Amino acid sequence: MSLGEFELIERFFRQLGARRADVVLGVGDDAAVVAIPPGKSLVAAVDTLVEGIHFPRNSLPRSIGHRALAVNLSDIAAMGAKPTWALLALTMPTADESWLAEFAAGLGDLARRHDVAVIGGDTTSGPLTVSVTILGLADNGAYLARSGGAPGDRVFVSGAVGEAAAGLAILESRLSGGSAAARELLQRRFLYPEPQLELGARLNGIASAAIDISDGTAGDIEKLARASGCGARIDVTRLPLSQPLLECAGPEAARDFALSGGDDYELCFTVPQERVPQLSARVPADRWPYREVGVLTAGGELEFFAGQTIVQAVRPGYDHFGH
Amino acid sequence: MSLGEFELIERFFRQLGARRADVVLGVGDDAAVVAIPPGKSLVAAVDTLVEGIHFPRNSLPRSIGHRALAVNLSDIAAMGAKPTWALLALTMPTADESWLAEFAAGLGDLARRHDVAVIGGDTTSGPLTVSVTILGLADNGAYLARSGGAPGDRVFVSGAVGEAAAGLAILESRLSGGSAAARELLQRRFLYPEPQLELGARLNGIASAAIDISDGTAGDIEKLARASGCGARIDVTRLPLSQPLLECAGPEAARDFALSGGDDYELCFTVPQERVPQLSARVPADRWPYREVGVLTAGGELEFFAGQTIVQAVRPGYDHFGH
Repeated sequence: MSLGEFELIERFFRQLGARRADVVLGVGDDAAVVAIPPGKSLVAAVDTLVEGIHFPRNSLPRSIGHRALAVNLSDIAAMGAKPTWALLALTMPTADESWLAEFAAGLGDLARRHDVAVIGGDTTSGPLTVSVTILGLADNGAYLARSGGAPGDRVFVSGAVGEAAAGLAILESRLSGGSAAARELLQRRFLYPEPQLELGARLNGIASAAIDISDGTAGDIEKLARASGCGARIDVTRLPLSQPLLECAGPEAARDFALSGGDDYELCFTVPQERVPQLSARVPADRWPYREVGVLTAGGELEFFAGQTIVQAVRPGYDHFGH
Repeated sequence: MSLGEFELIERFFRQLGARRADVVLGVGDDAAVVAIPPGKSLVAAVDTLVEGIHFPRNSLPRSIGHRALAVNLSDIAAMGAKPTWALLALTMPTADESWLAEFAAGLGDLARRHDVAVIGGDTTSGPLTVSVTILGLADNGAYLARSGGAPGDRVFVSGAVGEAAAGLAILESRLSGGSAAARELLQRRFLYPEPQLELGARLNGIASAAIDISDGTAGDIEKLARASGCGARIDVTRLPLSQPLLECAGPEAARDFALSGGDDYELCFTVPQERVPQLSARVPADRWPYREVGVLTAGGELEFFAGQTIVQAVRPGYDHFGH
């Protein structure tokens, strides 16, 4: 079916996500207007998902909508901030109503769960590309950056890593081991990643630096270390690998997925030695599991080792242009 | 040439646009952080340009960069607000260094002229698509919306309309009349539109409603009238048509370009009768030319007439899905 741009935006995007009292003027005018409470800084990020690059062709529209927002929420989580508003730029080849309904449901459900209002939208025709700008708030001066780490700070990784990359491999028929239940779980981790917003908020004030794991654990640790002017010594045997991942991929491929695969949207963060006790108190590991995987070092070298052996990280990051 | 995403963003987008003291954390972290002064509301809009839809294939990269920001700045102008920060989502098939340099120059020059800092960027591979989110500030409660018009309010159009659409027609070899100088001027109006930011700021407090003319004068007047719950009676013979446009297109096609062509990024605004004297005082017409073209009416009918004849607006708006 074919609808005009205006009508499309009206129907699916006018009331998408949470209703927030601070939205003075929402979708439908030249621009949106929102109220900013005193003492707050604005936090902003943009991420784009392109069909065939960031998700397989003919992906479920609900998953595309979910992921387009989740990857942005994850950036806000890594800042220790609170997400508030989003703007959506959607380019799609044809205006299919049922596709749009599912896409809007995937994005809208996640937005409502995190109290995010969609305040702007632009829909254009062209190859399927979803770009979301996320806006959030942090107390003035109170945010986590990649650059705050120092030599000696402990490096932690939350949750489990490698699952989403293995899930994508299953979706693309590159991986077929394990039980149906395990494969299903890994695929869901790719299709419906959960941004670690509450963890990020709790780390704010404790962690010295943070980054979300979007491009692969090795590459993202490298980015954090570089931004902090440090090296790092990482024990890859300490990376948190889940049972379903080990079951489907085996221990060796599981480690590769964890190191080099992306899309987990867990957090990597550093904590000065003296604040590690605070970390345990403020972030109960039964609710937000995390594991110490290494330490930031002086100098620029990044060493990923297993036992006494230095392991080369096969791919030090996900390169969208090399993909 | 091929560069990694990270290096690309580093080289061209880290310091793009103005340097603003309120940027606490710019491009390069998970998100940017900016300071918001007290008493201000945030204004936000997003617009996407797709190659082959919003600009011809193989357009000058400098023009693409300029236009990607200009269309967004125009939304801020229509709100009577001040632009401050932008986020750029750029999807391109290959990472060509000279293309990127020109694109960044086009976007960066316009950004600096309007004191806008680019605080976020995401570069991905895929079909050429440029999505810019513009952020700006307005005094709390002091912004122009489309919805503020009332029956009896006078309808004005700034500058001259139809030039950009004629310029695009010349670029696409659909129009060939007029002198080389006139054709050059019209093409420039398409390639390098100027957002009417100072005009918008001056209208703030005087105009009852405003919209930028991006989709065609007829369609955009219709949107403003609808949002205001009004109809309108517009004298198409009053539309401001420039000499170069009349020279290249002749009077009839010139009027069609003005009514139905888009991309002028002039402002259409309404002013209550009793504030028209203020308008003349605050917006000197020698500096910001504008012309009264009609009046908002009670009821929903939009009549575009010439003399005593009702003229059907051939295309009541630019439909990106019908294009």
